[in-house]
Amino acid sequence: MKTILPLIFLSFLLLAVALPGLPGGATNAAPARPAEADSLSQTAARIIGEATASGGAYEKLEWLTDRIGPRLSGSPQAEAAVAWAVREMRRDGLANVHTEKVMVPHWIRGAEVASIVAPAAQRLAVTALGMSDPTPASGVTAEVVEVASFDDLHALGEKARGRIVFYNKPITAHTDGSGYGSAAGLRYRGAAEAAKQGAVAMLIRSLGTIDARLVHTGTHAYEEGVPRIPAAAIAAEDAELLHRLGAKGESVKVHLTLGCKTLPDVESANVIGELRGRTLPGEVVVIGGHLDSWDLGTGALDDGAGVTVSMEALRILKKLNLRPRRTIRAVLFMNEENGNRGGKAYFETHRGEMEKHVAAIESDAGAGHPMGFSVKSGAGGEAILRSLAGKLARIGATNLEAGGEGGVDISPMLAAGVPLLGLRQDMTEYFNWHHTAGDTLDKVNPRDLADNAAALAFMAYALADLEVPLPRIPPEERESPDR
Amino acid sequence: MKTILPLIFLSFLLLAVALPGLPGGATNAAPARPAEADSLSQTAARIIGEATASGGAYEKLEWLTDRIGPRLSGSPQAEAAVAWAVREMRRDGLANVHTEKVMVPHWIRGAEVASIVAPAAQRLAVTALGMSDPTPASGVTAEVVEVASFDDLHALGEKARGRIVFYNKPITAHTDGSGYGSAAGLRYRGAAEAAKQGAVAMLIRSLGTIDARLVHTGTHAYEEGVPRIPAAAIAAEDAELLHRLGAKGESVKVHLTLGCKTLPDVESANVIGELRGRTLPGEVVVIGGHLDSWDLGTGALDDGAGVTVSMEALRILKKLNLRPRRTIRAVLFMNEENGNRGGKAYFETHRGEMEKHVAAIESDAGAGHPMGFSVKSGAGGEAILRSLAGKLARIGATNLEAGGEGGVDISPMLAAGVPLLGLRQDMTEYFNWHHTAGDTLDKVNPRDLADNAAALAFMAYALADLEVPLPRIPPEERESPDR
Repeated sequence: MKTILPLIFLSFLLLAVALPGLPGGATNAAPARPAEADSLSQTAARIIGEATASGGAYEKLEWLTDRIGPRLSGSPQAEAAVAWAVREMRRDGLANVHTEKVMVPHWIRGAEVASIVAPAAQRLAVTALGMSDPTPASGVTAEVVEVASFDDLHALGEKARGRIVFYNKPITAHTDGSGYGSAAGLRYRGAAEAAKQGAVAMLIRSLGTIDARLVHTGTHAYEEGVPRIPAAAIAAEDAELLHRLGAKGESVKVHLTLGCKTLPDVESANVIGELRGRTLPGEVVVIGGHLDSWDLGTGALDDGAGVTVSMEALRILKKLNLRPRRTIRAVLFMNEENGNRGGKAYFETHRGEMEKHVAAIESDAGAGHPMGFSVKSGAGGEAILRSLAGKLARIGATNLEAGGEGGVDISPMLAAGVPLLGLRQDMTEYFNWHHTAGDTLDKVNPRDLADNAAALAFMAYALADLEVPLPRIPPEERESPDR
Repeated sequence: MKTILPLIFLSFLLLAVALPGLPGGATNAAPARPAEADSLSQTAARIIGEATASGGAYEKLEWLTDRIGPRLSGSPQAEAAVAWAVREMRRDGLANVHTEKVMVPHWIRGAEVASIVAPAAQRLAVTALGMSDPTPASGVTAEVVEVASFDDLHALGEKARGRIVFYNKPITAHTDGSGYGSAAGLRYRGAAEAAKQGAVAMLIRSLGTIDARLVHTGTHAYEEGVPRIPAAAIAAEDAELLHRLGAKGESVKVHLTLGCKTLPDVESANVIGELRGRTLPGEVVVIGGHLDSWDLGTGALDDGAGVTVSMEALRILKKLNLRPRRTIRAVLFMNEENGNRGGKAYFETHRGEMEKHVAAIESDAGAGHPMGFSVKSGAGGEAILRSLAGKLARIGATNLEAGGEGGVDISPMLAAGVPLLGLRQDMTEYFNWHHTAGDTLDKVNPRDLADNAAALAFMAYALADLEVPLPRIPPEERESPDR
C-alpha cells in the first residue's frame, strides 16, 4: 500500500491539472468565492481538492496515534487526547472550542493468561473483555462447553453450571460490516446469560475477520442481580482448537486468569469546536467521532479516523471560506467503547437545544473508502440526502442506506428526533483490526482518509446550508436516550 | 478456506470417478499390483489417490499440533513429539523404527516487554530472537538507531555505540519464498555485528509478510569474543512507528526487557523409520523434515507439515505395496530451528554410510500446494528429475529448480556429495505465519498437505527405484558439514 500511494496521489494531481472542473492547487490559491456562487458540485470539488492536497486528517491522525496512542477512558492518554484536541481545534481557528465534563468508567487491564489443561496443554491467546471483573488470583479452571448462540446456551440448561461457556460464532467480512452484528450480542450479553445458568466464566471467539492469532476485545455488560463472571475473548485459532478438541467428545478443561479491574469513575470530557453559521448560528449540525479507543492498538481506525476527519472537515470549510447558514459543531465524544457516557452527557447537557439540532453525522466505521451515508430521518429526508450525496460521485460516496442511528455517540439524540447520519466506509477489512493490537496507523490509506474528511465536510456543509432543514424523525420512531 | 475445502474435495472425488486413469476408492481397494507392472505415471496416480483418500498426513499433523503443540528443542513437548513419532511409525508398520541421540541447546523464553519511552510512550509488540541472552532484570534503555543493511550499520561507525541498533528491512511475499533471504542474514548476524560497534541491544523488524501486529522469532548467533547483546524482533507496525518517529529527527528511546536464557544442553533425538528396499536395502534415500518448532505457534507449517508428509509418504508406499529397489528412510530431525544439531548428528552417525546415501529430500517450506523440487546433484541429475517430476503433472508439482541444499537438516550431506532435493511448496503465504503464534493447524489446507505427501512419496519411490542412482554432487561443489 505504502509504495503505491505516492503514485495514486501523483495520478490525482495530474488529473486535477488535466481535467477542467477538478480542483487543483490553483483553485485553492485563488481568492475564496462566496459559497452562494458555487453550485454544490463545485463546492464538493473544492472540498475534495483541499482535503487531498492538505492531507490534514492524516497528519492529525499520525499525532493522535503515534504520540498519544491507546486512549481507553480514564487513562492518561485519553486525557492527553482531550488536551491535544483542544489545542488542535484552536490552532485551526475554530470557534467556541471547549470541553464538556463527562464522568467515565475507569477499567484497567491486568495480567491475562489462559491455557488448555486437558486433554492437552496449550497456551491460548486471550484478552479480557472490557469491564470484565477479574478471576481470583489463582484463576478459574473448569470444563468448557461450546455454544454458537443463546438458544444453544439455554438448551444446555444445568449443563452450563460450573462450566466455562465458550461462544464460538465466526463472523464474515462484508463491505457494510454487517457480519459483526451476528456475534456482537453474544459478546455484550454473553457473560450475564451464561452466569444465569451457573457458568463460572465465559470465553468468546474473537469477533474478527482475519485469523492471525489476534485477540479482539470489546465491551460487555453484567446484569443487576446476576453473578459477575469473568469474560474474555480468544483468538480464532484458539477457538478452532477448542472446537476440534471438543468435537472428539473428550472433556476439555481451561485455566483462565484475568487481572483486570474497574476503579471508581473519573472525570473526563467531550471536546467541542465550531464553524459558526452565517445566518442561523443557533441552529446546529453535529459531526463527530469518539476520542477514546481500546487499549490494545492505537485506535487509528476506531475511532481516530472519525475524530480526525471531523476536525479536518471544519478546518477545510474554514480554509475555503465555506460558511453555511447554520453552525457546524464537531463533537469529539469520550467513552464510546465502554459506556457511551460522552454521547449521553452531550445529550443531557444540550437537551434544551435539541430542537435546534437539525442533524448529526457520526464517523465510526474506520478509514476505508467512503461509500456514502446511512440515514434515519423523517419522510422525504432520504430523497434530499440522495441528491446531496450525488454530488460526491467524484469520490464514489453516493450510496444512501436507510436505517441505523448514525453511530453510538449520537444515538441518544434519536429521543429528540434529530435526523441521524452515519458516514459509511468500505468496511471489508475493518473487522480484521477493530479492537485489536493491529488497529494502527499503517492500516489507514491517507487518500481514503482525505476522501472521508471531504465527504463529511461536504455533507455537513450541505445540511447546514439547506433552506429547510431535513425532516425530523417522527415521535413514534424515537427512543429513550437510556435504552 | 474451511468452507470451500469440502467442495474441492468433492470435486476431486467426482473427477476421480468420472475420468479414466485417475485413482479412486476402487483402485485402493483392488489387490496391490507389484510395482514393476506399473508405469511411473500409474504409480504416481495410485499414490496421489491414496494420499487424498486417507488424509493421513493431516490426521498426524492434527495430533502433533493440537495434542503436543509447540516443540522447541529441549522442551517436554519436543520429547513428547519424539515418543509420538516412534509410536506412529510403529503403528504404520515401518521397519527399523528407532531414535538416534542428539544433544540439543535448551533455550527458554522468559518475560519480554518493550516500549518506546521517548518522544512518546508506546508499547511495542516484541519477542526475543532464539538463543538471545537476557537483558538485565531492569531492562536496557537506549536511543534507537535505524539501519536497513550491514552497510548502513558500518557507515554509522561510533554512532552505534551505546545505542539499540534497529534493523528495518521489510520482506515481500513470493511464491518461492525468496523475499526471506533479503533479511534473514540481518536477523542471524545482526546482534553480533551491532555489538562490534558498541551497541547495547538489537531490534529487528519481524521477517514477515502480513502486518497483523505479529512478532516473528527465529534464531541468531553470537560471535566468539564479541559481547552478547540482547536481540529481539518487533512487529511490522512497531517498526513503522519507530521509523516514523525517527524520521522526524527526534531522539527515539526504547526500553527493552528480555528474560530468556540458555540452559545446559539436553539429550534429545532424531526419529527414524524405514521402508526396506527390495533388492538393495543397504542403499538409502532419506526423506524428512524437522520435529522441533518455535515456541510461539504450534509449528504446523514449520515443520509439522514436513514431518507428517514424510511419515505419511512411507505409510502410503507400504499400503500400496510399492517397494522400490532401495530403502527409503524417513528421518525426523531434532533442532533445525536453533542449532541444526539433528542434521549434524545424523551426518556424523552415518558418516561411514554416506556413499550408500543415493539422495535426500527435505520438506521444510510449509504446507502450500507442492510446486515441484529444488535439486543439487551431479551433471545430468536435473534431466532425470525433470522427467520424474513430470509424472506429477496431475497435481502440478512438476517444477524443477536448480540449486539450494534441499533443507537445513540434510545440508550436512553436501559434504559427501549426496544429491539433495527440497520439496518446494507455494510459499506465497508461508512468511505470514512462519515463526509466529499464527503458525497453527488452521493454516493448512488438507488437500494440499495430501498432495505434498504424494509428491514426496512418489519422488522418493522413483529415486529409490532408479537402475542407476542420481549423479552425485562433484567434489568441487561439496562443503564442510560444519560450515
